[in-house]
Amino acid sequence: MEKETVRIENFSDAVFAIAITLLVLDLRAPEINMVKNGAELLVFLKSEWTTYLAFTLSFFSIFIMWVNHHKIFKQIYSRNTAIMFSNGLILFLVTAVSYPTALLARFFNSEASSIAVAIYTGIFVLINISYNLLWFIASHNKKLLRPGITDSAIKKITNNYLYGFPTYLIAFGISFQFPAVALTICMLLLIYWALSSGKINMNKNED
Amino acid sequence: MEKETVRIENFSDAVFAIAITLLVLDLRAPEINMVKNGAELLVFLKSEWTTYLAFTLSFFSIFIMWVNHHKIFKQIYSRNTAIMFSNGLILFLVTAVSYPTALLARFFNSEASSIAVAIYTGIFVLINISYNLLWFIASHNKKLLRPGITDSAIKKITNNYLYGFPTYLIAFGISFQFPAVALTICMLLLIYWALSSGKINMNKNED
Amino acid sequence: MEKETVRIENFSDAVFAIAITLLVLDLRAPEINMVKNGAELLVFLKSEWTTYLAFTLSFFSIFIMWVNHHKIFKQIYSRNTAIMFSNGLILFLVTAVSYPTALLARFFNSEASSIAVAIYTGIFVLINISYNLLWFIASHNKKLLRPGITDSAIKKITNNYLYGFPTYLIAFGISFQFPAVALTICMLLLIYWALSSGKINMNKNED
Amino acid sequence: MEKETVRIENFSDAVFAIAITLLVLDLRAPEINMVKNGAELLVFLKSEWTTYLAFTLSFFSIFIMWVNHHKIFKQIYSRNTAIMFSNGLILFLVTAVSYPTALLARFFNSEASSIAVAIYTGIFVLINISYNLLWFIASHNKKLLRPGITDSAIKKITNNYLYGFPTYLIAFGISFQFPAVALTICMLLLIYWALSSGKINMNKNED
Repeated sequence: MEKETVRIENFSDAVFAIAITLLVLDLRAPEINMVKNGAELLVFLKSEWTTYLAFTLSFFSIFIMWVNHHKIFKQIYSRNTAIMFSNGLILFLVTAVSYPTALLARFFNSEASSIAVAIYTGIFVLINISYNLLWFIASHNKKLLRPGITDSAIKKITNNYLYGFPTYLIAFGISFQFPAVALTICMLLLIYWALSSGKINMNKNED
Repeated sequence: MEKETVRIENFSDAVFAIAITLLVLDLRAPEINMVKNGAELLVFLKSEWTTYLAFTLSFFSIFIMWVNHHKIFKQIYSRNTAIMFSNGLILFLVTAVSYPTALLARFFNSEASSIAVAIYTGIFVLINISYNLLWFIASHNKKLLRPGITDSAIKKITNNYLYGFPTYLIAFGISFQFPAVALTICMLLLIYWALSSGKINMNKNED
Repeated sequence: MEKETVRIENFSDAVFAIAITLLVLDLRAPEINMVKNGAELLVFLKSEWTTYLAFTLSFFSIFIMWVNHHKIFKQIYSRNTAIMFSNGLILFLVTAVSYPTALLARFFNSEASSIAVAIYTGIFVLINISYNLLWFIASHNKKLLRPGITDSAIKKITNNYLYGFPTYLIAFGISFQFPAVALTICMLLLIYWALSSGKINMNKNED
Repeated sequence: MEKETVRIENFSDAVFAIAITLLVLDLRAPEINMVKNGAELLVFLKSEWTTYLAFTLSFFSIFIMWVNHHKIFKQIYSRNTAIMFSNGLILFLVTAVSYPTALLARFFNSEASSIAVAIYTGIFVLINISYNLLWFIASHNKKLLRPGITDSAIKKITNNYLYGFPTYLIAFGISFQFPAVALTICMLLLIYWALSSGKINMNKNED
């Protein structure tokens, strides 16, 4: 059976690659007249630490999402309208990540910190839902999946994404009161996924 | 017979992917000194609803165009100058979509609303013409098409695009008087294409 | 003999696709406070005609360059340092096109018109030289070329690019005195290449 | 044995292509009211020479990095978490290059020159470390490498990257005192790699 989803995957990969690279446009050099000498340039650059934090966090978040997207589509062989548009929703949200990133960069170190972090964690809640939706659609119609996929492999992927949802939801809830804690949870989840993604990669049966 | 259009399709896919992702550059975070606290940030973000509307509408419009582009090129096996340049025209217009999108985002909720919507619906009229042109060229020269394609399959695709033209033209005409109605028609057409694209996908004979 | 240049071609295609799509970033919507109503929006948009002209001209120029790039690399099977870096030079110049395009957009209708057009035609002179350089390197080392390529095919491609160089040089020279004429020459050359590229495409022997 | 790294390579290629093309966004045309005539436009363009220098240097630096990335991944056949994330680190830093490039463009010809050049050379130190890290991980686990790769081929690649690290470190150290010298070292290293990359390309045994 031929895999029908190759062009969707290539298009998705391109969107991920562009979205991840466009993040850099939010790192802006100061205007020439704002900085008189090297010391002032260093002061300016240090004051921009929230921008670097937001850029780094979003870069590796999208990177992990891309790895996970790859992993899900390795199991999807056919497509239908629901697959197409739940994938379209993922791409829409991944593309949009640069906006909350810019808000986080500018307002994390301000009075508006809690709202900026809530929006930032909020988009990851939505992205998590969209991944669960894609996998829910795919895993509930075995005709769409790789021939010969085992139920335990399906369950393993299902579990991998289910953990993310409540965690991001907790981060979202916390962000209104303790924005720094909420952001730390996002980073820890990122590290967890980086490590767990590795383990699945190594196990050839599910990969 | 070898398919000659692979590199054109890959190039077109890349242009679609970039055009769809660049739309996000119009979502701009407020400057740090425009917003004092979380409440003001929320007020600012709410006032930007036309930007989100324009971004969402254009994202899924380009997404549907990409799906349709894919569908047409699955039937085209050879290329000639006319195919190359009618496809170039499609890419030109798809790339340009971000400009009317920015106009819509800024002026939908202003005195200039009708002109902004007219330009926005106008570019979709032009894109629709360019798709019809591409398919007209391809379907009137059977040497360009997939060997063994049936006349009913050709006709089905022809019809699928013909409906769009008068509808967008009506939306364009209405937009001068009732811009909100015109935009609603664009959204409904999007949903119609999303669903109908699915049906053709499911039917393996034409796909 | 395996074609060694696939990854170079894919990378080049991506750069062409991004460069052609980024051109749109120079079409900028007016700020909300610059325009009070639909009539003023139309006046603003009309005043931007040089931007549309520059965008359109550069879009189709890069499109034709991409077609020609494809055509040359269909004949190149091996790579060496000279191929890699003459191709890198082409990509560098193609990427840079958006800068003279922005100059043309802003200054074609100003006192600085002749300089803007001279720079614009000047970059096409350079791009033409870089294409001739790539083809010179490839065609003077038959080991780099497609096995079985005929001398007449080589000569045909050589001639196709040679015409461009003096024409762009003339346009460059004229632009200081008659910028509008110089730009018209660029457009005519574009149309000539669009048509002649078609003819080579149709002829299966060289393609 | 099947190569498992194809999708990683394609994704990386896309990120390289986008990062290299986005550099052009830092070439900005003057506002229309800043320039009255052709002579003033020329004066403005000449004053922008640091921007052209930074753009050119970064473009060819990323281009060489892409060539080297290609070369390393030709030898890597399997992937694990460490490969994935050391490659992610490379992509992160390559994407970020546009920021030090913008700093260099604006401040090379100012009092802040030494800091701007130190940051610029600094990112190349980091990129060099990330390449060495990727190759260290790959070359210390023969299961990850191309079957049949010889120890001398591994050593040759190892050496090729080792030279870069101390050189960039020296450039970084010098930049605080003699920024122009530091930048010249970067350029010479670029030329060295362009030429040496060629030699490895020519030698079919390692390629």
